[in-house]
Amino acid sequence: MNEPAFLAYLKEIALIHESIGLLEWDSQTGMPEKGAAHRAEVSSYLSGKAFSMSTGPEMTDYLAYFAAHPEELSEFGQAVYDKVKEEYDLNKNVPADRYQAFRKVQSMAHSTWVKAREAKDYHLFKGSLEELINFTKEFIPLWRKEEATPYDVLLNQYEPGMTVAILDDVFSQVRDGIMDIRQVVAEKGTVPDTSFLHRHVTKEQQRQFVTQVVTELGYDFSRGRLDDTVHPFMLNLNRNDARITTRWDENDFGMATLGVIHEAGHGMYEQNVAAKYDYTPLAGGVSMGIHESQSLFNEIIVGGSKAFWQRQFPALQAITGETFADVEFETFYKGLKETKASFVRIESDSLTYPLHIIIRYEIEKMIFNDEVSIDDLPQIWNDKYEEYLGVRPGNDLEGILQDVHWAGASFGYFPSYALGYMYAAQLHHGMEKELDVEAILGSDDYSAIRKWSTKNIHQYGSSRKPNRLIMDATGEALNPQYLLDYMRKLYFDVYNISE
Amino acid sequence: MNEPAFLAYLKEIALIHESIGLLEWDSQTGMPEKGAAHRAEVSSYLSGKAFSMSTGPEMTDYLAYFAAHPEELSEFGQAVYDKVKEEYDLNKNVPADRYQAFRKVQSMAHSTWVKAREAKDYHLFKGSLEELINFTKEFIPLWRKEEATPYDVLLNQYEPGMTVAILDDVFSQVRDGIMDIRQVVAEKGTVPDTSFLHRHVTKEQQRQFVTQVVTELGYDFSRGRLDDTVHPFMLNLNRNDARITTRWDENDFGMATLGVIHEAGHGMYEQNVAAKYDYTPLAGGVSMGIHESQSLFNEIIVGGSKAFWQRQFPALQAITGETFADVEFETFYKGLKETKASFVRIESDSLTYPLHIIIRYEIEKMIFNDEVSIDDLPQIWNDKYEEYLGVRPGNDLEGILQDVHWAGASFGYFPSYALGYMYAAQLHHGMEKELDVEAILGSDDYSAIRKWSTKNIHQYGSSRKPNRLIMDATGEALNPQYLLDYMRKLYFDVYNISE
Repeated sequence: MNEPAFLAYLKEIALIHESIGLLEWDSQTGMPEKGAAHRAEVSSYLSGKAFSMSTGPEMTDYLAYFAAHPEELSEFGQAVYDKVKEEYDLNKNVPADRYQAFRKVQSMAHSTWVKAREAKDYHLFKGSLEELINFTKEFIPLWRKEEATPYDVLLNQYEPGMTVAILDDVFSQVRDGIMDIRQVVAEKGTVPDTSFLHRHVTKEQQRQFVTQVVTELGYDFSRGRLDDTVHPFMLNLNRNDARITTRWDENDFGMATLGVIHEAGHGMYEQNVAAKYDYTPLAGGVSMGIHESQSLFNEIIVGGSKAFWQRQFPALQAITGETFADVEFETFYKGLKETKASFVRIESDSLTYPLHIIIRYEIEKMIFNDEVSIDDLPQIWNDKYEEYLGVRPGNDLEGILQDVHWAGASFGYFPSYALGYMYAAQLHHGMEKELDVEAILGSDDYSAIRKWSTKNIHQYGSSRKPNRLIMDATGEALNPQYLLDYMRKLYFDVYNISE
Repeated sequence: MNEPAFLAYLKEIALIHESIGLLEWDSQTGMPEKGAAHRAEVSSYLSGKAFSMSTGPEMTDYLAYFAAHPEELSEFGQAVYDKVKEEYDLNKNVPADRYQAFRKVQSMAHSTWVKAREAKDYHLFKGSLEELINFTKEFIPLWRKEEATPYDVLLNQYEPGMTVAILDDVFSQVRDGIMDIRQVVAEKGTVPDTSFLHRHVTKEQQRQFVTQVVTELGYDFSRGRLDDTVHPFMLNLNRNDARITTRWDENDFGMATLGVIHEAGHGMYEQNVAAKYDYTPLAGGVSMGIHESQSLFNEIIVGGSKAFWQRQFPALQAITGETFADVEFETFYKGLKETKASFVRIESDSLTYPLHIIIRYEIEKMIFNDEVSIDDLPQIWNDKYEEYLGVRPGNDLEGILQDVHWAGASFGYFPSYALGYMYAAQLHHGMEKELDVEAILGSDDYSAIRKWSTKNIHQYGSSRKPNRLIMDATGEALNPQYLLDYMRKLYFDVYNISE
């Protein structure tokens, strides 16, 4: 046994994962509808192969050998080993038969979720949800290392180093801060005109415009592509093939425009990870939260910048002929940044979005602290929407059934979205110490921004933990105040409020 | 060891092949240009896996076991076993190191071929070609079973059961017959007006029209899709996912129209193989020749039918606005079916096409009978073009360097194309005993034709040999006269010649 053999073994696993990635991308972008059953066979066969290579005897032997002979690993080899060991340890205590039983319930839960959505009835999904929660509760002690509470174990899987103690603190600041901004806006703000947002813009016009925009931002189409899908995502096969997707609405150009700008942020992250991590588990973004920080930086910071739109709006006008010829720039910008409570998370604006996340966070914590009955969840859900957002869902489809995550047992995942918001604003603040961001966004060369992000975030792939990245890039730990400051400034401007 | 375990093992190999298929499709339809190097790693890793599973000790054990215990195989299991054994035997005598050396030369030959094409100079490619020929000559005795001549061994790999003796006979008839038709056409024919063929038809108009046409012919888009590519092909991942591709020229709508109709024929074959062959080597078309018979049936028989175009031309006119409003149907049909000698095979029409193939066949035979020096090939090539087609290539690019096949060492492959022509015409003749094909092609329901082909060809996948399929479907062995009769009738009509 030696390091090159270990790396070669990891490369095999990486190559299988890349192949699985393409199967997944294809099934979400254009696989013929009747190809699904055969596709499931291929994907599950290869996933099984990769899983057994990652957890089987050969991997066990490698890890045992290098645990006994750490001196045989280079610094690079050690970093790779640590990451592999971390993933291996996570699963090694879960008995294979229990894991398989869990996977089966998980795959059925997706169908019951879909059926419950059709009937707008939570009770059709409740049984599956309860089973998934019970499995997760069974696994938590097996996954647990030093985490303080059961829910900390789940958080840590998506955002290494994140804790309930930290989140309770920052989320309560964010919740209060946003509710305060919303109140001022409601009381003193001038609601922007948004009627132009629904003018007809063809798919081809939208594609031309947004392709141009994300190319300027630094998304490299020679190492990526843009396809149509139902639920937009970015999928990186490798750093030279990081693909983005979107869906288009010809009567709501803002959706795909900001959606593609968002996905391009994910893609730019992957495209700029250092080549030395190729074919190791250190290739690819480090966590959901950091990944979202990059996509949300694009969507919220860039897409919220007045200077940026001052240059891009004329480009949009040029592509769309007479469509927006009569729209003033101020009207355009303010309409684009309207804020309004919504039932559905993915339709919300950047001010209200974190509240949707905090609601899910609070409910998940209650579930894993055994403070709630599964029966009461819809009631709790609706009460929280009323309290935080001032709207009460009329049925379970626009309420508790709206997101797919729980059907996939992805408990602990939602907070990453809000972390991404806070990281993005904090990184923006860090960036401003070195760059005049607004001036750059008003110029015809955005490259300094992409380079700053590559230098501070992208290049490291998964070799540095989220808290280290944030600390090194901004000089302090997670601090939600930057997000609140940013939001206050932006929305007070949009709603003509002077402080 | 038992049959279910054997089939499960074969299924694993099939699943890997399906994944390789998607990687290949993707790399030819839209993979980001800089993704190529990573992609090569994934593809070659999985290909190596599939190859070693197909030839390694586990497969050797299965084959030895069932050779000793044939009574343990069902009839279905036996058929699968025979096919697996055939492929296994083909490779078992070739030493792994020689095969690897050959693969290396093969992959370099592609680059030298590309370079030689750029320089239009055969001499840059000659060295690679000679190496590939020498490897092939080295392997032929290892591959050989009962084949009569070395070239028979090569033929048999692409068209099981085909021999030089048969081809010499049928190709001389085809060559003489076509040259005779060409002479009459040249002497007495009225050359059709083809100017309208180059009117501008947008890609979207072409796509709409041809999608409609192939759907009517029976290509199922819920189990397939149509994408853009450089060198059009059909690729089936499985019978529920058989994808076709094309390239478009807005000033030559006939190219993509007939191209997609051709590829749809390949796709319809794969989509209609019986489900019981799924995940075995009997899934998928049996040979290149039979595959081409299905694509060429679509392209030549359907695409050459006057009744078919009498109904489809108005549909094309409706989609293209005023573009063809002034074109009479007779003008349209005759222009579409013009025949004219060309240097390049893939640009040729259906009458001259077989001559391009026969030229390659004659040269390949000379090579493997040691009757020619590699140095003399361009001279021989050009002489044959002058003799058979009346045109002499001005350089090696439009001459001997035009096709990729020799750079891939695919010697013995070309004849399949001409076999496809002859099979298509013979199947058409067989079909006419049961169906009034021209009446069906003039109607709005073509399904009887697709069903006849499924009943006689498609359903069997690779479970029956080409000669058996042709014999059962038409009542006789390969007979080139049907092609000649068909061509004579069609081209005499197009060129206004009465016999």
